Amino acid sequence: MTAQIFTDWAQTHQIRIEKTLDHTLPAADLAPQQLHSAMRYSALGGGKRVRALLCYAAADLCNTELAVADAAASAVELIHAYSLVHDDMPCMDDDDLRRGKPSCHKQYDDATALLVGDALQSLAFECLAHPNLCKNASLQLQMLAILAQASGSLGMAGGQAIDLASVGKPLNQTELEAMHCLKTGALIQAAVLLGAVSGSVTQINALKVYAQNIGLAFQVVDDILDVEADSQTLGKTAGKDANSNKPTYVTILGLATAKMHAQQLYNNAIAAIAPFGDQALRLRELADYITQRRF
Amino acid sequence: MTAQIFTDWAQTHQIRIEKTLDHTLPAADLAPQQLHSAMRYSALGGGKRVRALLCYAAADLCNTELAVADAAASAVELIHAYSLVHDDMPCMDDDDLRRGKPSCHKQYDDATALLVGDALQSLAFECLAHPNLCKNASLQLQMLAILAQASGSLGMAGGQAIDLASVGKPLNQTELEAMHCLKTGALIQAAVLLGAVSGSVTQINALKVYAQNIGLAFQVVDDILDVEADSQTLGKTAGKDANSNKPTYVTILGLATAKMHAQQLYNNAIAAIAPFGDQALRLRELADYITQRRF
Repeated sequence: MTAQIFTDWAQTHQIRIEKTLDHTLPAADLAPQQLHSAMRYSALGGGKRVRALLCYAAADLCNTELAVADAAASAVELIHAYSLVHDDMPCMDDDDLRRGKPSCHKQYDDATALLVGDALQSLAFECLAHPNLCKNASLQLQMLAILAQASGSLGMAGGQAIDLASVGKPLNQTELEAMHCLKTGALIQAAVLLGAVSGSVTQINALKVYAQNIGLAFQVVDDILDVEADSQTLGKTAGKDANSNKPTYVTILGLATAKMHAQQLYNNAIAAIAPFGDQALRLRELADYITQRRF
Repeated sequence: MTAQIFTDWAQTHQIRIEKTLDHTLPAADLAPQQLHSAMRYSALGGGKRVRALLCYAAADLCNTELAVADAAASAVELIHAYSLVHDDMPCMDDDDLRRGKPSCHKQYDDATALLVGDALQSLAFECLAHPNLCKNASLQLQMLAILAQASGSLGMAGGQAIDLASVGKPLNQTELEAMHCLKTGALIQAAVLLGAVSGSVTQINALKVYAQNIGLAFQVVDDILDVEADSQTLGKTAGKDANSNKPTYVTILGLATAKMHAQQLYNNAIAAIAPFGDQALRLRELADYITQRRF
């Protein structure tokens, strides 16, 4: 096989996850229409799909069946989409802009946004519970357990809770990292693991270390972009975190040290997957993509 | 075995589900403490546990292993608890009282209530994804699929969306029943099925008919109590639905016809499980309990 260049591979898989989600989400003309329309509005047509790409890249490394990778990538993207819808609500971050469009509660209303998030979460688990998805039902149960843990109070939702409680408080770097390990890191790690566990690779721990580092790097870069980019490029409100008195890597470390920290996390991630050699090409390229992105 | 009287059986299993949930929910002193404390506040210490009792009764009929029944009953009660927390929020029903206590967003705040609901939903799926819960992993996957479908946009969350859209609209009885089949019925049916599917009974369709009828009867009785009971007895705000211009069985059928309708649904439920004979004693008693309750 001739090596496909990364941007082509990424685009192919961004289109693939979009189509898969399009098939997975109920049609907009199926009752209840407004809920389904709002679910599609929130989960389709946007985003870098970093989590799906990580899932497909891990699946590629581990020779995971493509149908399993599709279901895993969909489940992770649906959880991510639900978290954005709820995070944007007035009682949370109160953000009007998401992926360059009005956020769900602005486009519809608060009650619809609440139900959209709830229903997207259920749908994520439904994706992974599909009968005969894996030849090995026990591995499929393991995937469901990974997703549930990554989403819950000791994962993403827990990270959100710590984030909320931290507004205006002087966190140190350790506390900030602990928070982001849950808030962003848990689902990014789940994306990699879900792509991997039903495949042939047994060095799952190396993938965990990769995912932990790349998850944190993702957040550090997010904080840098929040300061350096403008809202139009970012597709969401820039300067929001700094303005809302939330601790970020930039406010704690300063911009220059935050950039060095992102580089160190990148190096750790690359080192973790070195034993896989060329097989881990896509994961290495994704590490580049995540740390070098401008939006 | 000497037949235990129903109230003793119900109390035993209400205590059992309370203990099981107590073990399942993260400890209140585990970080993030406020989220865990609020999850416990919302899911423990109250309610009639009708869904758990239906699950245990179906499990009893089908000789389902008790550990599976515990996980299934917990999962259903956690989904129910999450739905109540989100339903009570200001952007939904804006209700300050639940089970005789301040509702979650009143006791904590809106953002915490949002995350509590989200995390309780994840935890419900985690309960059922526990490795080796069932000897047959495929049946366990089937249980996860049942719960996901019952919770999502074609189940409970979808029913909520239709309910929201129906405020102030003149629904007829068919439309009202279609809405409640999703809003309340889907999870009640899931409770019965989750207790049954890993057991020895093959007449699952009879149980479905029972559950559908008892689910609707539950809602009709709820609407009657909303008019007839006071807030203190009910543990939530009485007269809320009628006052908020929501269509109910009482507003559509009138009080007397609503009562007759509840009786008919009860009769249908009892007829559906007649073939099981004495083995279905608890399900019959639960049908009595649901239609004759005063709160």
